[in-house]
Formats: sequence, C-alpha cells, structure tokens
Amino acid sequence: MIPGSVTEIRVRYAETDQMGRAHHMAYVAWFELGRTEMMRQNGLSYAGMERRGILLPVVRLEVDYLKGLEYEEVVDVHTSIAEVRSRRVVFDYRLVRRDDAVLIAEATSVLLSMDRAGRPCRLPEDVRAALAGLVRTPGGTGGDAA
Amino acid sequence: MIPGSVTEIRVRYAETDQMGRAHHMAYVAWFELGRTEMMRQNGLSYAGMERRGILLPVVRLEVDYLKGLEYEEVVDVHTSIAEVRSRRVVFDYRLVRRDDAVLIAEATSVLLSMDRAGRPCRLPEDVRAALAGLVRTPGGTGGDAA
Amino acid sequence: MIPGSVTEIRVRYAETDQMGRAHHMAYVAWFELGRTEMMRQNGLSYAGMERRGILLPVVRLEVDYLKGLEYEEVVDVHTSIAEVRSRRVVFDYRLVRRDDAVLIAEATSVLLSMDRAGRPCRLPEDVRAALAGLVRTPGGTGGDAA
Amino acid sequence: MIPGSVTEIRVRYAETDQMGRAHHMAYVAWFELGRTEMMRQNGLSYAGMERRGILLPVVRLEVDYLKGLEYEEVVDVHTSIAEVRSRRVVFDYRLVRRDDAVLIAEATSVLLSMDRAGRPCRLPEDVRAALAGLVRTPGGTGGDAA
Repeated sequence: MIPGSVTEIRVRYAETDQMGRAHHMAYVAWFELGRTEMMRQNGLSYAGMERRGILLPVVRLEVDYLKGLEYEEVVDVHTSIAEVRSRRVVFDYRLVRRDDAVLIAEATSVLLSMDRAGRPCRLPEDVRAALAGLVRTPGGTGGDAA
Repeated sequence: MIPGSVTEIRVRYAETDQMGRAHHMAYVAWFELGRTEMMRQNGLSYAGMERRGILLPVVRLEVDYLKGLEYEEVVDVHTSIAEVRSRRVVFDYRLVRRDDAVLIAEATSVLLSMDRAGRPCRLPEDVRAALAGLVRTPGGTGGDAA
Repeated sequence: MIPGSVTEIRVRYAETDQMGRAHHMAYVAWFELGRTEMMRQNGLSYAGMERRGILLPVVRLEVDYLKGLEYEEVVDVHTSIAEVRSRRVVFDYRLVRRDDAVLIAEATSVLLSMDRAGRPCRLPEDVRAALAGLVRTPGGTGGDAA
Repeated sequence: MIPGSVTEIRVRYAETDQMGRAHHMAYVAWFELGRTEMMRQNGLSYAGMERRGILLPVVRLEVDYLKGLEYEEVVDVHTSIAEVRSRRVVFDYRLVRRDDAVLIAEATSVLLSMDRAGRPCRLPEDVRAALAGLVRTPGGTGGDAA
C-alpha cells in the first residue's frame, strides 16, 4: 500500500532528551536516511552524485510530529518521491512504529540540484529519469509513473 | 525592526557535513536555542516549566533554507512569538548572517503544552500571559500585544 | 575469534564533516549502540535498568582512531566486556570495516552504576552476574568466565 | 593559573539525554570548540589550515567524566596545548562549571597533521612554531615554552 522504500530505525540513547523521548532533531537525520537508502536501492548513491559534481541540499523541510518515541523503539521510515522537476525533487516520509503500526510523524523535504559553486543546476538527465521513475502515483503503486 | 530575542550562533566543525556546509539538522538545534534563550530572558526557563510538570514538545516544524552556511560563520537567530493559544505556542525564526546581514533561513515551530503523562494540557495562566506579552505585533514592536 | 556482540553501522550523511569523513564524535554514539545492543541481546536493556532506578553513566572513555571512514561505509562494532566490578563495568570496542576487514578504531569505556540521586551504588546482583557471565576470557571464547 | 584559552558553553536541550544530563557525546564537540577557538584566537583557523591542504583529524581521545551537567548549566572549557611535535599536537581540556567552579571533566586529544590524500605530513613550520609558542609550561604561564 505504501509505495517507495522502507528503512528501519531504532531510537538511539544519544537521540533521547530529558523529556525521555527522541529529540525532534533526530527525526531529520532519519528522513535523510530514508531518502539516501531509497536512492541507493535504486542505483543513485549520494556519494556517486557528489563525485559527478551534483549536490542535493535540502531547501525546505516540513515535519508534523504526531506521537513521541521512546528509547529503543523501532520505527519504519516510509520514503516516497512526490515530484521530480528539472532542478528539484520532493520527498515524503511517514514514520510508523513497528510494534503497533502507529503513525509517529509525517514530513516532506524539497531538495535542490546544485553544482559545486553553489548554483542551482539541472539534474543530469539519467538521474532525473531514474527519480521520475520512482514517483508515487495516485494509486500508490509507484515505479511506473514517468 | 525585528522584534523578539537575538541569539548568536557560530557554526561548529561538528555541525558541518561533507558538502562543506552546516548540515540542515543543526539548524533545528539553533532554533531551539533561540526559543529557549528568549524564554529564559523573560523569566520562563524550560527547566523551570518541566519542574512544574509542563513539557513543550515541538509538534510542527517548517524550515526554508535559503543560503548555506560555512564552518565558523556567525549567525544571529532572531526569535519571535507569532501566536499563543491555551495549549500551543507558535515561534518564528530568522537566521541572519552577522557579516553581511544575508537572510540564511526562515522557520516556524509549533509547541504543544503537555503533561508528564503525554496528554495535551492548558498552559499555566502565568506562563500563557507571559508568552502572550511577547507576541510580535504587526508593527513589529512586540511586547505590548496582549 | 572476536567474542561478544557485533552491531552493524552505516555512516550517515549527517555524521560526516567537511573533511569528508565521519566526525570523531559520531563514533561515541556507535560505541553506545554496540554496548546497548550487547546488553539487550543478553536480556539487560538500558531502559529496563533505568526503570529499576539504576543509571549507567560513562565515566571514562578512550578512543584510538586508526583510519577514517567515509559516508555510506559499513562497519561492524565488536563489543566485549573486559571487567565487571560491584559498581562499574568496562566495555571494549573494535570498529572493523565490513568490506576489507580493516580495523578503524579501538575504544574502551567505563560505566559507573549510579542511583537516581547521582550516588554510586552496587549493581543489582542479577545484573552483575549477567554482565560477569559475558566477560571476555583471555582465550577469547567469552561467556563462561564468571 | 589555568593557561590557554577559555570558551563558554551552555548545555543545549538537544544535548541532554533521558538521564536528564548532557550526553557524554556532546562533550566531544565542546572540546573541539575549545580547541578551534584557541587556535582562532591565535591566528590559526581550522578553515585556513584546510585551505592550505592541512587536515588535523583527532587520532586519540581520552575523557574522564567526573560530574554530570544539567540543561542550561554554563561551563568553561579551559584548553591548553601539552605538546607539539612535527606531525602531531596534544591538547588538554578542563571543563569547569561556572557557578561553583566544580571540575566536571578532564580530557586529552591528539591531532595528527595529514594531507588531503590522508597521508601524515609535517605541520607547516609557521603553524608548528605558533602552536609551540602556546605550549603550557610546568609553571602554567604558557607562551614561552618552545
């Protein structure tokens, strides 16, 4: 039902704060993990992109924190691609607790294609096509969108 | 012109990533610093709130990253309060580079008032009033809003 | 050959710094992961200890960084227990890169048994015995030491 | 009495863990802050070194955690240089709580001079001399050691 990629996370002790929950900053690293994992699984490693001179900084981030998470809890990061344009990609994330399938957080991030000098640039055509091929379709089957 | 509180940040080496910029996760800690500093300056310490049994988790976060930041650069976090309701507070942030006054990022976070058991609860009246007194007014003078 | 527990780590993008390597701070979280994973696998969860009122803060840490690690590289954290005393436990760690079996770092941490008030206290006898049963023996077989 | 450089730190909320103390990982970033601040105050910025092709990775770290620190507490990082050799520098740190002058932690880190290719290399002579001029003398006056 949920298209895209799933990455398992277990809350680290170092990620908790004195409220006894995972600090809201840690989620940002988890979304990045979900995104990079999804790209790697589809032959698009960040490291490889950077060797080609393409950086993909996050230019917008939106997170809704619905439930707290405790130390050692296991969550799945469901990552999908909502939109691919010539210079930007929009990723969506859903964090779902493994034990009880409770939705913990939802998020969206927008990545910009940028060259080493910091100028926005077009995604290489093969990368754009590969990402476009992963775009989530309304029916949620993904992969056959472009 | 910018109402509210100003907190100085210098980008730590540990906050950079291999793009040679401050990682976008670090900003989330800086917004928190701006917010907690603003509260402390107005007699409302987080630690004090927690001793009274009130937690203030972030339930929504929105960030626009406009420019990258390099190691050792100094930025001012301008924090202001946009809205105070009985159970939630909305903070706004503007990161401005010290050297050239360039706007680096803008963000908003929504905090929920919660008790130790994780249930939403009303802000204590003195806290609500103190926060309401800090709400930014349209004219940007702040402090005389409530 | 290496006794104890093995935990797989993949270097996160957020853990890199502008040298293009994993920042030396990140390793500290990985050692903690190795240690907590080893304890959990042996029925001794940190969370469970804390519910019984026992905290285990790190009071000493020693790390030798032998090789750098790049983004996305996979390493195994080999964790073992070197010594258990009434109020402290000594853990050893070896980080080994998965691909080529190169030793990346070696470390030792000493944990103190402490109560909620911050006073050193004896480990509960069942915990002490369980940890002692995991002590690495000179021959490296582990598990039958106590 | 304490030679070298002093850098003020205030414990960030994001640096606490569920024990209600600053996580032991955070100290590693504070030592780095103390070290980079000391170098910058003496005209030796890390960023500048890197532009000259010299990296200074940490190859050894030793920390003694003597007391815990709570959120919002202010500590001074006293940094000094213990030894300078052709390819390495040894820094010492003492964390002292501002309020009551209690010693919180002591640490030592060893930095290696390395080129971009990851090979150990000699420190440039001007850098070596500048660092040597900061070496702590037994009497603690510093600055005239080399």
